[in-house]
Amino acid sequence: MSDQILSGAPQGTPVVDLDPPLRTLLSHADDNMVLAQRLGEWISRAPELEIDIALGNIALDHLGVARSLYTHAGELEGAERTENDFAMRRTEREFLNLLLVEQPNGDFAQTIVRQVFFDVYQGVLWGDLAGSEDETLAGIAARAGKETAYHHEFSTSWLVRLGDGTEESHFRSQRAVDALWRFTAELAAPYPDNWRAAIDDLLARAGLMAPEDPYQRSGGREGYHTEHLGFLLAEMQWMDRTYPGMEW
Amino acid sequence: MSDQILSGAPQGTPVVDLDPPLRTLLSHADDNMVLAQRLGEWISRAPELEIDIALGNIALDHLGVARSLYTHAGELEGAERTENDFAMRRTEREFLNLLLVEQPNGDFAQTIVRQVFFDVYQGVLWGDLAGSEDETLAGIAARAGKETAYHHEFSTSWLVRLGDGTEESHFRSQRAVDALWRFTAELAAPYPDNWRAAIDDLLARAGLMAPEDPYQRSGGREGYHTEHLGFLLAEMQWMDRTYPGMEW
Repeated sequence: MSDQILSGAPQGTPVVDLDPPLRTLLSHADDNMVLAQRLGEWISRAPELEIDIALGNIALDHLGVARSLYTHAGELEGAERTENDFAMRRTEREFLNLLLVEQPNGDFAQTIVRQVFFDVYQGVLWGDLAGSEDETLAGIAARAGKETAYHHEFSTSWLVRLGDGTEESHFRSQRAVDALWRFTAELAAPYPDNWRAAIDDLLARAGLMAPEDPYQRSGGREGYHTEHLGFLLAEMQWMDRTYPGMEW
Repeated sequence: MSDQILSGAPQGTPVVDLDPPLRTLLSHADDNMVLAQRLGEWISRAPELEIDIALGNIALDHLGVARSLYTHAGELEGAERTENDFAMRRTEREFLNLLLVEQPNGDFAQTIVRQVFFDVYQGVLWGDLAGSEDETLAGIAARAGKETAYHHEFSTSWLVRLGDGTEESHFRSQRAVDALWRFTAELAAPYPDNWRAAIDDLLARAGLMAPEDPYQRSGGREGYHTEHLGFLLAEMQWMDRTYPGMEW
């Protein structure tokens, strides 16, 4: 690796040249893996026990999808790597998740806004991938699409409740929309019209506004991440890296 | 509150004088709540993704049981407090959980040994409470008993695999048994013979030994805790305490 790449500054070309089908699987697996880690941080820390359980279940759904996609990526590669190798033994530069999902939980409003942005994205994504020529991927997408429908129901109903709620909850949700908007161009890129139309509709129902600021960050799909992913991976991977090859 | 009580030193009498039925419900609710928090800390940090999912599901089972018991405790009290009040607005001295469940996760072996000790306890407990005259409690116990059977299957099969595995995994599981044994008198107290017989059998199958050291700590059921519970509650309760009465 060159010093330039180690510096973490965007270079325009990915460190790892992957075949497109493998890149697709790892991109989506990483989205689900990283988001599962973030949502898992809420367990027993949510403002209400009912929300605790809901976020915990959503975290486990995302973890399940990540596992299926990593396993299938291993098959595509020729069984060189297992699901655990992909999750635990790749570096930050090899993770291809969207920048949005690695952003910190913040307060509950920020978690909900992050989830709404991502659920709308995944809703369109799974509908698309369910028609994939790769039958295994199509099957994973069909199952995941059903789960995403539940997540979407949860996150959007909370968005409306928060945005259209107290002055404080409205303020917090608008602040979250403003803070996370910069990561949405990357998210919306594959399906821009579908994503934006659905989000505009939801924001209107919640009495919230998309910010006018056009500044956007991207690069997650090429392995260029915000400062948050390194810490998240350190927590996720420390056991495997501390005891390499440990037989549990 | 007197200075003596604020000092946190064991006094022999509980700070809170609760009616026995309410005390029973809160004791078991707190066990499940605290253990759920501990197990939730594993999400996306377990040595394998499969274990991640399993521990996450077990955490959510315990959280579900805690909610049912807190809600029923509220009914018994006359609807003064909700499940969230019990979980988020009681102090360390008011928590009545067993010392075992508040102990840190340690390595995977320590988490498994803690779980085996607790699953055997809960197996006997739910069988007992399923015959309770309180029909709501009997129903909760009957449902929880089915979940505990799955938890027991998971934890004991891992105990045997670790204890009877590599030199390293054997060493780690024996070390965990030695470290956690001091919290088992409190755990075994209500059903000493059943608990010890089942544990002796499991340890023998795993090639592990109960330590001879008779030193034991107790006091959890009276609200006297180890230094770990305070930190755990701080994480669990910070949002509610930081934004009291926040309407989400």
